[in-house]
Amino acid sequence: MIKLTYDKLSEVSNKLLLAVGASEEEATIVSKTLTQANLCGVDSHGILRLVDYVHAVEKGGIKLGVTPRIIKESPCTGHIDGCWGFGQLVATKSMEIAIEKANRDMVAIISAFNCNHVGRLADYTVMAAEKDLIGIMAAKGDPCVAPFGGRKAIMGTNPLSCAIPHGGEQMIVLDFATSKVAEGKVRHALLKGEKIPEGWIVNSAGYSTTNPEELYEPPLPPDAIKIAGALLPFAEHKGYSVSLIIDILGGILSGAGGVNMKQGNNGLFILTINPEAFISRSEFKEKVDQLVRTIKSSPRAQGVKDILIPGELEAIESERRRKNGIPIPEDVWDNLRMLYRKYGLKMPEIE
Amino acid sequence: MIKLTYDKLSEVSNKLLLAVGASEEEATIVSKTLTQANLCGVDSHGILRLVDYVHAVEKGGIKLGVTPRIIKESPCTGHIDGCWGFGQLVATKSMEIAIEKANRDMVAIISAFNCNHVGRLADYTVMAAEKDLIGIMAAKGDPCVAPFGGRKAIMGTNPLSCAIPHGGEQMIVLDFATSKVAEGKVRHALLKGEKIPEGWIVNSAGYSTTNPEELYEPPLPPDAIKIAGALLPFAEHKGYSVSLIIDILGGILSGAGGVNMKQGNNGLFILTINPEAFISRSEFKEKVDQLVRTIKSSPRAQGVKDILIPGELEAIESERRRKNGIPIPEDVWDNLRMLYRKYGLKMPEIE
Repeated sequence: MIKLTYDKLSEVSNKLLLAVGASEEEATIVSKTLTQANLCGVDSHGILRLVDYVHAVEKGGIKLGVTPRIIKESPCTGHIDGCWGFGQLVATKSMEIAIEKANRDMVAIISAFNCNHVGRLADYTVMAAEKDLIGIMAAKGDPCVAPFGGRKAIMGTNPLSCAIPHGGEQMIVLDFATSKVAEGKVRHALLKGEKIPEGWIVNSAGYSTTNPEELYEPPLPPDAIKIAGALLPFAEHKGYSVSLIIDILGGILSGAGGVNMKQGNNGLFILTINPEAFISRSEFKEKVDQLVRTIKSSPRAQGVKDILIPGELEAIESERRRKNGIPIPEDVWDNLRMLYRKYGLKMPEIE
Repeated sequence: MIKLTYDKLSEVSNKLLLAVGASEEEATIVSKTLTQANLCGVDSHGILRLVDYVHAVEKGGIKLGVTPRIIKESPCTGHIDGCWGFGQLVATKSMEIAIEKANRDMVAIISAFNCNHVGRLADYTVMAAEKDLIGIMAAKGDPCVAPFGGRKAIMGTNPLSCAIPHGGEQMIVLDFATSKVAEGKVRHALLKGEKIPEGWIVNSAGYSTTNPEELYEPPLPPDAIKIAGALLPFAEHKGYSVSLIIDILGGILSGAGGVNMKQGNNGLFILTINPEAFISRSEFKEKVDQLVRTIKSSPRAQGVKDILIPGELEAIESERRRKNGIPIPEDVWDNLRMLYRKYGLKMPEIE
């Protein structure tokens, strides 16, 4: 296990992306979101993704030097063609527009298509919250989740995020997949030779299974590209409903695609709300802080050490890793080293 | 068990509300939502609520003859003071404004406070979907749900609804409480002397319990007015996050109140989206239909008879009850009979 500072890890990513041909802006935005994910402990969305991204650039799936453009607009809405740029670039630009519009016209909905993998949604919703706007975002992804009662992967893992403006207390940041678990967790169990809990997946014959292999068509991970079974939605019929709505908001409304969206694509739905449309920003933030304090100081259930605010776990982990360094597994590091060699780069010194 | 047609049940409600002093409009709107709930099988939000409503009118909690008014407005937003009218009146007017705004300006957010119990949210989101708009609605209610890991009721059961414009296929209508179960289900088990499943509630000492009595401070239901323990949120930390966001959107943003909202109050958050801001309505509806067909015809998990679309169960039940009549339990009917007597009315003949 290697340990790096935030700045060093960001530099590792940045240098590689520039060598691959990304612009300063692209490299900065992508490196920031990847490093941010590692910092807060969501390693599945961190620097390990660089290998896929570099391959996608090489194969033309991710196009460099493009500028996402608005193809349809009204004061409170914008429809964005991401032009197959980095998903992080498309999402960042989309959120910037959503912030500008909600600042001026109280609310905005932006949807985007032709957009690659965007990473953690919280990175974008927090941009809004830091500007005193409520930020909500959902993304439709590749089909890998079965409808409740089904066995065929139709919906994406369709993550949902929301960040709330706050005063002195912890920021409320929700960010979760609407599948029971992320596909990465099944993959992780498979690679470690472990079983998975009942209720995570269904196999292609429609049986619940604890064998992670049954999620995939051969070849199995790490080379797997196709799903045979399906992940299950979170929270049975309720979670299925939410996932389905995100399929519609992120996939159909954006034009990214409904049941036959291109693989690796993300369809984005972004909503920003200016509290000033209703009550003053200061009153809003004060009452949110009060709610957070009430929850944090409320009595706990038996066996519970701490009641957490959504996003608090990531904030605690960020603090810890900022102090102690960000751990990167050897295999992830080796992959980066190979890419560095391929692009004739010298790996930065790690103290 | 008594059985009535939709029209007859609506008439029973309407006559009583008029006698209590409601206007034609108020009586019509409230009767429609109550009867609609019974029709589709959600009896907990049906005609049995009339007793509470009449008491609230008598005590002044529900004010008659008021007109909800916009206190702050922008092209895409509206802040509504419900003036303590019937919740159904406030919600209906709010959704009408949201529909008008989204038709004209593509998107609208309406929030409302000083609003009594609104009933089933699907009644309002469907209004939007029938006008080819995506309708989303959430309501903050009385504190009865503990945060994940807590034992004190802080959040409301905070229902969430969404209805999607459609073509010839089944309309997608999501409508659920963000608590594990509605309080009514615990009450129902208690009155029947049954245990409840593990995971529904926590008692005041913070232990999980299967004894429904432990949710309440004495007196127990049907006279219970105070919660001692708490309902648990659906889907652990994910459901808790969603419930918390609804507390903020419905309670804080609307001004209805954060941690100390008045009892029996609903704070409303309504969002309407015009698909035309992004793609044509016809393309949107076509793709939604295609998604519904794909799901309905997709292979089922073992032991599953049918894959349902959100809202389909209610649509099937509505069909059945429209044909066979709406069953009303004797005790609910007796309560109505008492109110009829009190207001000097003659109960309609039931064939």
